[in-house]
Amino acid sequence: MRSQPYPFLKGHGTQNDFVLLPDHEGQVHGSLPAGRVRALCDRRAGLGADGVLRVIRSSALAEREAGIGVDSEWFMDYRNADGSVSEMCGNGVRVFALHLLEEGLVPAGEPIRVGSRDGVKVVTVEPDGQLTVDMGTPRLLDETTVTVGERSWTARHVDVGNPHAVAFVDDLADAGPLTDAPGHDPAVYPAGVNVEFVVRRGPRHVAMRVHERGSGETRSCGTGACAVAVATADLDDAPRGETYTVDLPGGTLLVRWTDDDRMLMTGPAVLVAWGATTLG
Amino acid sequence: MRSQPYPFLKGHGTQNDFVLLPDHEGQVHGSLPAGRVRALCDRRAGLGADGVLRVIRSSALAEREAGIGVDSEWFMDYRNADGSVSEMCGNGVRVFALHLLEEGLVPAGEPIRVGSRDGVKVVTVEPDGQLTVDMGTPRLLDETTVTVGERSWTARHVDVGNPHAVAFVDDLADAGPLTDAPGHDPAVYPAGVNVEFVVRRGPRHVAMRVHERGSGETRSCGTGACAVAVATADLDDAPRGETYTVDLPGGTLLVRWTDDDRMLMTGPAVLVAWGATTLG
Repeated sequence: MRSQPYPFLKGHGTQNDFVLLPDHEGQVHGSLPAGRVRALCDRRAGLGADGVLRVIRSSALAEREAGIGVDSEWFMDYRNADGSVSEMCGNGVRVFALHLLEEGLVPAGEPIRVGSRDGVKVVTVEPDGQLTVDMGTPRLLDETTVTVGERSWTARHVDVGNPHAVAFVDDLADAGPLTDAPGHDPAVYPAGVNVEFVVRRGPRHVAMRVHERGSGETRSCGTGACAVAVATADLDDAPRGETYTVDLPGGTLLVRWTDDDRMLMTGPAVLVAWGATTLG
Repeated sequence: MRSQPYPFLKGHGTQNDFVLLPDHEGQVHGSLPAGRVRALCDRRAGLGADGVLRVIRSSALAEREAGIGVDSEWFMDYRNADGSVSEMCGNGVRVFALHLLEEGLVPAGEPIRVGSRDGVKVVTVEPDGQLTVDMGTPRLLDETTVTVGERSWTARHVDVGNPHAVAFVDDLADAGPLTDAPGHDPAVYPAGVNVEFVVRRGPRHVAMRVHERGSGETRSCGTGACAVAVATADLDDAPRGETYTVDLPGGTLLVRWTDDDRMLMTGPAVLVAWGATTLG
């Protein structure tokens, strides 16, 4: 299906990739139909992405009446590749903030406030150009069990806004090709779970793979890196304020669990292309 | 790595997708380094594509001295996603020709001549907007055997510029997930082979899956569709000039084997986006 050309950008954070749709006054995409999101995210017939980030003023947001997006000028209207609405994306919000900065839509040198359906996220730019996101407060819960085929591991249940099971393994290859979702306890995770497999790389340094519910194994997962960092810090009995380095297949994220019980995630954001499309 | 912004387009033919790089005088991309091609084709960190089509005047082509690209104004400088140089691509040449037409780089209403390392390809526009490519003369060779795991099938060796093994199966699922290249006779195919699995759908109508050497299973393969059509027509003892409909995972191609022993392949071409990038 062909529509009038409209602008887009393409970017990624640790290879979690996004199509950005500038639509400041909400007049380009209306309610942003799921079919258009799917057409954009299609990796063969479209542009290809893990999700779409609509760049819209909070004042133009239809959901504003429901109290969403009232505390920031800009709102990250995030959609999954299947077209469904999503609350937040830790890799996406860095790319979104970089775009606001590059376009001069927010003042340089100040924390960038990005509205999301999970509240306002505050992003700061590090001296090296990486971006740090305040990912909120984690909840460390009980141990549980995850399985792949005949194998099973004890895993830590961590909730960082969405549910995770963090399993320490001897080798990242132990979990196999992860073509299917790992088994989990449906009593603990009635809505499914993101499963992380983790190995030690060194002091305050781990590497992980992640299977995201609904997406399969992915190159990167911001909330997963946060869950892994706090589960590891807890196991280490590390003092708050230590920075953990988390290697993912798509890159490296740094996570600091602060004295006031918040997770600060630092990582890269890249915008690689911009143009116009007629998709959807 | 960031370079100066340069223009691109994204398009596909039956979901075989390409980044097009307008570089009419050969001054934007020089020799088009493999690293840039890989960066563009990366499906997470780049734009994502099966290959790159540089749009260059034949007169600007460095290889012209070797006698390449002397018989057409425009040359399709095709590169595989890994950056390697390639001769031709049946799906790519339709997308390339559509671009020439949309940009007014060739006169409308006339056959479009596209130079390639496999010679000049002539493309015509059908009344419904699909494009027909003269894919040259096939060579129908002996029977051979292909294997997947414990299973094996008799296959027809067809050469349409590159080597194919066409195996008729009871069900397209019989070949399994095709995560590995099917086994083949190295004496017949010393440089590897593209393997097609085919089922009948009706009179002059088949459906296929393809494993392309070096790429794995793909959504579409233009030369594979041609090989399948002529192998089927030969099996049917069909008169020349009959049109075969070939369903692939990414769409449908029509192949007519003409009285003068040429394969005319007809299929769609779509350009979905255009813009600028700094990749590579």
